[in-house]
Amino acid sequence: MPISFNPPVRTLMGPGPSDVHPRILEALSRPTIGHLDPAFVGMMDEVKKLLQYAFQTDNELTIPVSAPGSAGMETCFANLVEPGEKVIVCQNGVFGGRMKENVERAGGVAVMVMDDWGKAVDLAKLEQALETNADAKVVAFVHAETSTGAQSDAKGIWELAHKHGCLVIADCVTSLAGTPILVDEWGLDAVYSGTQKCLSCVPGLSPVTFSEKAIEKIKNRQTKVQSWFMDLNLVMGYWGEGAKRAYHHTAPVNALYALHESLVMLRDEGLENSWKRHAFQHSALKAGLEAMGINFLVNEADRLPQLNSVFIPEGVDDALVRSRLLNEYNLEIGAGLGDLAGKVWRIGLMGHSARSENVIFCLSALEAILSELNAPITKGVALSAAQSVYSA
Amino acid sequence: MPISFNPPVRTLMGPGPSDVHPRILEALSRPTIGHLDPAFVGMMDEVKKLLQYAFQTDNELTIPVSAPGSAGMETCFANLVEPGEKVIVCQNGVFGGRMKENVERAGGVAVMVMDDWGKAVDLAKLEQALETNADAKVVAFVHAETSTGAQSDAKGIWELAHKHGCLVIADCVTSLAGTPILVDEWGLDAVYSGTQKCLSCVPGLSPVTFSEKAIEKIKNRQTKVQSWFMDLNLVMGYWGEGAKRAYHHTAPVNALYALHESLVMLRDEGLENSWKRHAFQHSALKAGLEAMGINFLVNEADRLPQLNSVFIPEGVDDALVRSRLLNEYNLEIGAGLGDLAGKVWRIGLMGHSARSENVIFCLSALEAILSELNAPITKGVALSAAQSVYSA
Repeated sequence: MPISFNPPVRTLMGPGPSDVHPRILEALSRPTIGHLDPAFVGMMDEVKKLLQYAFQTDNELTIPVSAPGSAGMETCFANLVEPGEKVIVCQNGVFGGRMKENVERAGGVAVMVMDDWGKAVDLAKLEQALETNADAKVVAFVHAETSTGAQSDAKGIWELAHKHGCLVIADCVTSLAGTPILVDEWGLDAVYSGTQKCLSCVPGLSPVTFSEKAIEKIKNRQTKVQSWFMDLNLVMGYWGEGAKRAYHHTAPVNALYALHESLVMLRDEGLENSWKRHAFQHSALKAGLEAMGINFLVNEADRLPQLNSVFIPEGVDDALVRSRLLNEYNLEIGAGLGDLAGKVWRIGLMGHSARSENVIFCLSALEAILSELNAPITKGVALSAAQSVYSA
Repeated sequence: MPISFNPPVRTLMGPGPSDVHPRILEALSRPTIGHLDPAFVGMMDEVKKLLQYAFQTDNELTIPVSAPGSAGMETCFANLVEPGEKVIVCQNGVFGGRMKENVERAGGVAVMVMDDWGKAVDLAKLEQALETNADAKVVAFVHAETSTGAQSDAKGIWELAHKHGCLVIADCVTSLAGTPILVDEWGLDAVYSGTQKCLSCVPGLSPVTFSEKAIEKIKNRQTKVQSWFMDLNLVMGYWGEGAKRAYHHTAPVNALYALHESLVMLRDEGLENSWKRHAFQHSALKAGLEAMGINFLVNEADRLPQLNSVFIPEGVDDALVRSRLLNEYNLEIGAGLGDLAGKVWRIGLMGHSARSENVIFCLSALEAILSELNAPITKGVALSAAQSVYSA
């Protein structure tokens, strides 16, 4: 007979969810009100404004989709791809592959531009694909590959795509609030993210933003969007301006309280300060890991500070280390995916997890376990290396 | 500059969300853990078992979809309808119309069986449609029409559908835990519900259950499910039995804590007691409303105790009364939808809202406002009529 579930208290340093700030958990549990209550509608307007700030955009259609990041991804593809249309998908990790699935299920034709996992998208290859496929309508890429920790050049991709008359869809699940995303300056047409990464909110919502050009395309589709739930023509009626909202679906009221609170906290900290904090904590973690002799998968220039993929030291049992971290230290770090399974760990420094406490704790726990397992690491230097970053 | 949002404390007696029990709000705010954490996976297994109890089914595929009820609806249609297939949709309110949209967007052909809003589905009409459309593959109907408060004969619909070799999809968003749903006994193949109605949980999740026959159809589809996010072939890999779970999407961890807690509370109260409580509170509300001279839209035999559609007294301004209830009493009741807008109110008695406190408060507030507006009601009798039910 199941009883109330009391979760263990973990430190979350995997690829997300990240540690949720107590203020956000508290906001989550405030009394539920109706999804058409004027007080709630007022809060929705604030969420839109705060999301515009986080995305650095004036896009009117800047809202959270009422479902996790993968539904945000599907919202972009289901609305922007019509049957038979060609979409160039840049793949350099797991999520580019998921984009391909989304294009095909929307009836589109995916033209793949493949790069090695852990590398940024190669602009020369994209340019070639655009030239070969002059009928392509959309370019899709992953700004921050959660499966590898590689970051791609969003502005460069946009310049090529727009030169060839394509709209741009960008996966910013892991980048939002962790590293710069300048939606308007970079000209991105459709961007989706998640709440459980650098916003430090609970998982379950997907912030999205759409340019005027994207909305124009959606409004002038030849065919209906295949998803009723994700059809932005309908969703706009609920999230639109003004007090008059058309009922579409019942919004996840409490999750939106939490998102609102996390966005207020981001606004109070300041977006640039949040980017700096992620970069700074990454420097300390990096110093500690490299002092131990642990190396990064991604070149420094393309590396996301908030998602650190590092090679597992020779001869070390991946699953054993992760389960000991979880069971003995209540510390979660992420496994590698696909070909990288068993080869790398993914250490997240996202949102409220991007703190000195977490960095020091993680280095300390990892060093202790690796030492006990006689792994080929340099001992006794990781913490002082990290500390030297903090005291610099 | 937006600051933290502190919602007003409302009494929720609309069509949902209902009042959320404090235990459930507290569970919601427990510390977030990873969606692949063994502790979380153990909780997921409990959620499945508890949902099997709530649905009265042994169906292995009994899970919450990670999005609101309309995504649960779409999950059923997107998985069970292949392009070109004929689906008989029984419509007697808003949600049957949404089913038609879902069938068509999945590439199916909807054959509509129309009944008046507020009436139950007419079995004779359904039988005729089944005979005329021998090639139909699926029958879909709304067990509990949230737009009217009418309940249809699920078992009778199933018997006709199965006689003609059709699978049955049932919308039980408003019925789950409020009135009997016996999924296995009634032979329903795909059922979806919501968390924010008679489970008294926060909105955002959609419990669903699928029979073996439904799963067989899904596994043997000729075409891919058009939604990647809702494709049950993929979702099953995450929600399947055993400790090994394949990552599909990031589950809404905290919302699932809340659902778990609400299901533990349902199990502790007992499903039959929950049904009885809803029926009992309905009797008291009905006694009070009828004493005032307010009449019900739906015939007594087809009436849902948890969703009371009543005619607005002659000459009374619908919106004014609802906004006064909200502003002066913090009490939310629901408006009519479609043709019933301005003609009926929908008073919900769902989950934690199905309490004597709420019934007495609602009758009292409604009588006070209607009296002030000189509405044609009988005054001074509603509360004693309700009390006589309680003291009987």
